[in-house]
Amino acid sequence: MVVPSPQLAVIGGGQLARMMQQAAIGLGIRIRLLAEAPDVSAAQVVPDHVVGDYTDLDTLRAIVADAPVVTFDHEHVPPEHLRALETEGHACRPGPHALLYAQDKGDMRARLSEMGIPCPRFRMVTTAEELASFGFPAVVKTTRGGYDGKGVWVVRSAADADEAFASGRSLLAEELVDFRRELSALVARSPSGEVRAYPVVESRQANGVCAEVIAPAPDLDAGLDAEARAMAERIATELDVTGILAVELFETADGRLLVNELAMRPHNTGHWSIDGAVTSQFENHLRAVLDLPLGSTEARTPFSVMVNILGGAVEDLEAQRAVVLAAEPDVKVHLYGKSVKAGRKVGHVTAYGSDLDDVLARARRAAALFTDGVTHD
Amino acid sequence: MVVPSPQLAVIGGGQLARMMQQAAIGLGIRIRLLAEAPDVSAAQVVPDHVVGDYTDLDTLRAIVADAPVVTFDHEHVPPEHLRALETEGHACRPGPHALLYAQDKGDMRARLSEMGIPCPRFRMVTTAEELASFGFPAVVKTTRGGYDGKGVWVVRSAADADEAFASGRSLLAEELVDFRRELSALVARSPSGEVRAYPVVESRQANGVCAEVIAPAPDLDAGLDAEARAMAERIATELDVTGILAVELFETADGRLLVNELAMRPHNTGHWSIDGAVTSQFENHLRAVLDLPLGSTEARTPFSVMVNILGGAVEDLEAQRAVVLAAEPDVKVHLYGKSVKAGRKVGHVTAYGSDLDDVLARARRAAALFTDGVTHD
Repeated sequence: MVVPSPQLAVIGGGQLARMMQQAAIGLGIRIRLLAEAPDVSAAQVVPDHVVGDYTDLDTLRAIVADAPVVTFDHEHVPPEHLRALETEGHACRPGPHALLYAQDKGDMRARLSEMGIPCPRFRMVTTAEELASFGFPAVVKTTRGGYDGKGVWVVRSAADADEAFASGRSLLAEELVDFRRELSALVARSPSGEVRAYPVVESRQANGVCAEVIAPAPDLDAGLDAEARAMAERIATELDVTGILAVELFETADGRLLVNELAMRPHNTGHWSIDGAVTSQFENHLRAVLDLPLGSTEARTPFSVMVNILGGAVEDLEAQRAVVLAAEPDVKVHLYGKSVKAGRKVGHVTAYGSDLDDVLARARRAAALFTDGVTHD
Repeated sequence: MVVPSPQLAVIGGGQLARMMQQAAIGLGIRIRLLAEAPDVSAAQVVPDHVVGDYTDLDTLRAIVADAPVVTFDHEHVPPEHLRALETEGHACRPGPHALLYAQDKGDMRARLSEMGIPCPRFRMVTTAEELASFGFPAVVKTTRGGYDGKGVWVVRSAADADEAFASGRSLLAEELVDFRRELSALVARSPSGEVRAYPVVESRQANGVCAEVIAPAPDLDAGLDAEARAMAERIATELDVTGILAVELFETADGRLLVNELAMRPHNTGHWSIDGAVTSQFENHLRAVLDLPLGSTEARTPFSVMVNILGGAVEDLEAQRAVVLAAEPDVKVHLYGKSVKAGRKVGHVTAYGSDLDDVLARARRAAALFTDGVTHD
């Protein structure tokens, strides 16, 4: 038997690739996956997968050999490998020239500032003296490799930055922004240049990790809403991003928007769209990277709330599923097939409806039952 | 590495199993599949699959060995094998005692009539004389194995039934019903006895095959709507069906309901629910057979229209996808990964919205583009 060639290679086998596969099944897109280990989240649901190391160029070459397009579950593939794949004729989407700005926060800050996109005040710092001259309080970040609060230090004195400097990593200092809340603007963009913006959402963090997302961001000023969407569309276009771009934003206490982070892949702040939008971010990511026409990014419902399921007291999520569905039969459950570790993202739930308080309460209750086995209300 | 045991064995690798897998990914349910061939529709998306013959008991035993529950993509597994699996401690859902009534139309007619459920007038016929005494016109059906118009003859004389009698199969004669339209009432039922009814839909056939489905059935009399749902709930309960039960109905010219067929699995007339209902029939099938609490069967939108993609002039559905999405970016596309053969169900599309004419037009246009490469309007 001859198995048809895949239409898309996906590097990385986490939950983002898993949810891409759900969308790919509907569209009839055959995915080949490079998985980090035999039973990672996406490898459980993509038959055509190979276990290997995404930092090894020959492994990447083997995976993409007969796939016309390559996309990613994460932003950690070495850019020089992506450039090599491009030279060899593979379409990397997003390409290394764009992905750079999701991989390196220093380059991102410099580029966005050049474009006149509002960012927190920043400077690259290599010494405690440079940091002191930047001023305190400050946020010190490694320019590469940080995520979910890792590689980020809030410093109020030079001594607070000892660990950061000891890391030996390239460091960026940023002003500690006095923000009202965090927003996220997602867009999908195709190589042909079609761009579609999702409703701007509010993202609530706990311990540096996205805890819950409300779509759309409640009571968002119409001007800021339009500005956030326009900013995300412009960044996607000028950086030549293909696929989903997430622009994480601060809404400052004095009512401005500042860009916090960029992500170039489906993003936690867009998971609500699976159940709450006409076209999910995963479907639009696939459509975008394959240069298919994009689908509507409009919400199907007045409010959607996504709450992450973080590893907690409940060890057996499959057994707990019955408890959650009994308590909240209409909350949509998304489990990632991952083993439970403290604080690890192992799934999410989404509730939707027209009464935000009710929607919030239902989503939180379901997530709490998955996390702790008890509700908090 | 130890791969965790599957939670569910699915027998049969067609599009129904494929769409079950889409729902299973969200719920975090691990499926093991028995596929008819290496690259059938569901085998493309279920890594844990075995290729084998579902009429071979030892093959079935191997598939279900470490799976607590077994369900089905079709109704063709020999009942004696299912009874053997039950004796050996496996939960078959639906069980052979229920499935019998989806497998054998004669037993179905007899049982429903005993229950007082309205059916077309019928009689088992073994000779042309018996058929003549039943009267003409009549519909002659093989009691087993027919589907999509196969094994069904409309006869106006004894001579018209020659092919049917020559088949050597057990035959049922039924009155030729003067019907206004065909309806379908779907319910999900769990072993605990929870039952949820979907909105009653209108199903339009072409050449004996379901062509399109409108949810809900337009302008359906409220009394008939309630009667159809109640009938489906009662059949599910009294026959002890687990999972999805589809009751295909005639709405007669004089305003009565008659049961046409029963199916005990997700059904073509329920595909709209993937995009149009709070909980899809595939998710509720999985929740039902695993005895998890069921989700809401309510529609999310005033009208959903599903149109099947039948094999036609377009040979490369993947290439055609770009054309369809350009013409109808918000129609939801479901391709089954099957090669195109004339008249074969290779996918479906669903449109939804509040203007039925518009929804119908969009769904038909998208399906026509997939089938013939041209629209018909």
